[in-house]
Amino acid sequence: MGDRSSTSVTIERVRHRATTVVRDVVAVEEPMEIRIVANGESHRVAVTMRTPGYDFDLAVGFLLSEGLIARREDVVDVSYCPDLDDVQQFNVVQVTLAPTTSFDLTMLDRNFYATSSCGVCGKGSLEALRTYCAVAGNDDLRVEESMIRGLPAKLRGDQRVFSETGGLHATGLFTNDGLLVTLREDVGRHNALDKVVGRHLMSGDLPLSRSMAVVSGRASWELMQKAAAAGIPMVVAIGAPSSLAINLAVEFGMTLAGFTREDGFNVYAGSHRIALR
Amino acid sequence: MGDRSSTSVTIERVRHRATTVVRDVVAVEEPMEIRIVANGESHRVAVTMRTPGYDFDLAVGFLLSEGLIARREDVVDVSYCPDLDDVQQFNVVQVTLAPTTSFDLTMLDRNFYATSSCGVCGKGSLEALRTYCAVAGNDDLRVEESMIRGLPAKLRGDQRVFSETGGLHATGLFTNDGLLVTLREDVGRHNALDKVVGRHLMSGDLPLSRSMAVVSGRASWELMQKAAAAGIPMVVAIGAPSSLAINLAVEFGMTLAGFTREDGFNVYAGSHRIALR
Repeated sequence: MGDRSSTSVTIERVRHRATTVVRDVVAVEEPMEIRIVANGESHRVAVTMRTPGYDFDLAVGFLLSEGLIARREDVVDVSYCPDLDDVQQFNVVQVTLAPTTSFDLTMLDRNFYATSSCGVCGKGSLEALRTYCAVAGNDDLRVEESMIRGLPAKLRGDQRVFSETGGLHATGLFTNDGLLVTLREDVGRHNALDKVVGRHLMSGDLPLSRSMAVVSGRASWELMQKAAAAGIPMVVAIGAPSSLAINLAVEFGMTLAGFTREDGFNVYAGSHRIALR
Repeated sequence: MGDRSSTSVTIERVRHRATTVVRDVVAVEEPMEIRIVANGESHRVAVTMRTPGYDFDLAVGFLLSEGLIARREDVVDVSYCPDLDDVQQFNVVQVTLAPTTSFDLTMLDRNFYATSSCGVCGKGSLEALRTYCAVAGNDDLRVEESMIRGLPAKLRGDQRVFSETGGLHATGLFTNDGLLVTLREDVGRHNALDKVVGRHLMSGDLPLSRSMAVVSGRASWELMQKAAAAGIPMVVAIGAPSSLAINLAVEFGMTLAGFTREDGFNVYAGSHRIALR
């Protein structure tokens, strides 16, 4: 991550009635606006609270998971907004779409209603996702259960900013052999996954049908949606899954593991991808 | 919480190469739409992924933290949307505003840009918040450091759904003596705080200037914003704070503690409210 991912502050450390004034490091949280430039016009798509670093990957990863872009060729250019002053410039990212990429504001509204905003019941949300999500259950990802148990330690070992601040979520993309390909950290766990996906979208690697996403916290609807959009067939969570995360995994033929520890884990969907020896 | 807060699922539990099929309980996550009815017209304000239960409190708490309502008298009625079928009905909550409460859609846009969406830099967001946030640093909350160290255990002790599912955030509102007043759980930590604040808004208790909010996870910008809107001068987090959470606490004269354990905690702002013996 860049230099802006953590910052130094003065705090009072209280331990059993004694206070000491010390310097400490905290994770940076700053808003970032994502704009789409299409047909010469700029449209504000979203503002997300994020930890600075890999901002371009975050922007394109977010657009993919909302179904607004689908492939590397949809993106002509990604840049910070040049019109703003020094402070604000690095908090606005504009993604210029290819002239051949269809885009209109009505579609944007419908997508946000259907996905980020999620309709008004889980069933409706699942149906909306189907229109653009890449996971189809026809991948050939197969993994060993012993490898899965080793993933939390591998994720933690590479969380540089977390080890400084104790305050960041992480997503790691791993191969079926348990090799870490890309790890990103962010105050927002959905942002960490968007940064991973955005990087591989720009490298032309999608769909990521032979990879696992390992997430440091719980597995929510939103994380599963983003994995599905990138074609990632398996999500391994250190924490608990929600009901809607499980529903999404079942409907899309994905594998979802939770409460992953050195001595075991729970499988909520898609156990056929996991070999017991 | 109501009966819909958790649900039973069949899972495969993997422990050292052995798999057993068992029933388990997970936290429910469902989208909820919040509508405002003003001058006879219904406006869609937001959709949030939440754990069902205390939905009306969540709706009014959300509207308060976005600056769209300010007091009990602004709310004439809160109800589920009667026009929808069985499944969807309980995922749409409409809040009818008093005729005297000013509301227009342009204001709504501006507010969302300024707060949920947070502008494009932290400084701008803080300035927008000032227009409606109640915390002013002129409360008389004073607490003992030993009481603060006991708060995490008290919060965990009352987390009913978490103990079942291992998958929920919680916010507890405590008095200056460390008595728990209201505890709410949700898959979204911001929702848990909205449910607490909404309940006390409807009871006419705002501003909550003699209370602390204890949050089970990290302290983000969004949580501090909601506490500030409700006039809560002190936030105690079990986890880490972000940079922008600290900035907000400093600017609004709030107290922010983090990494709270039985043997101590860190104070990031407003230590004058904490007595060492």
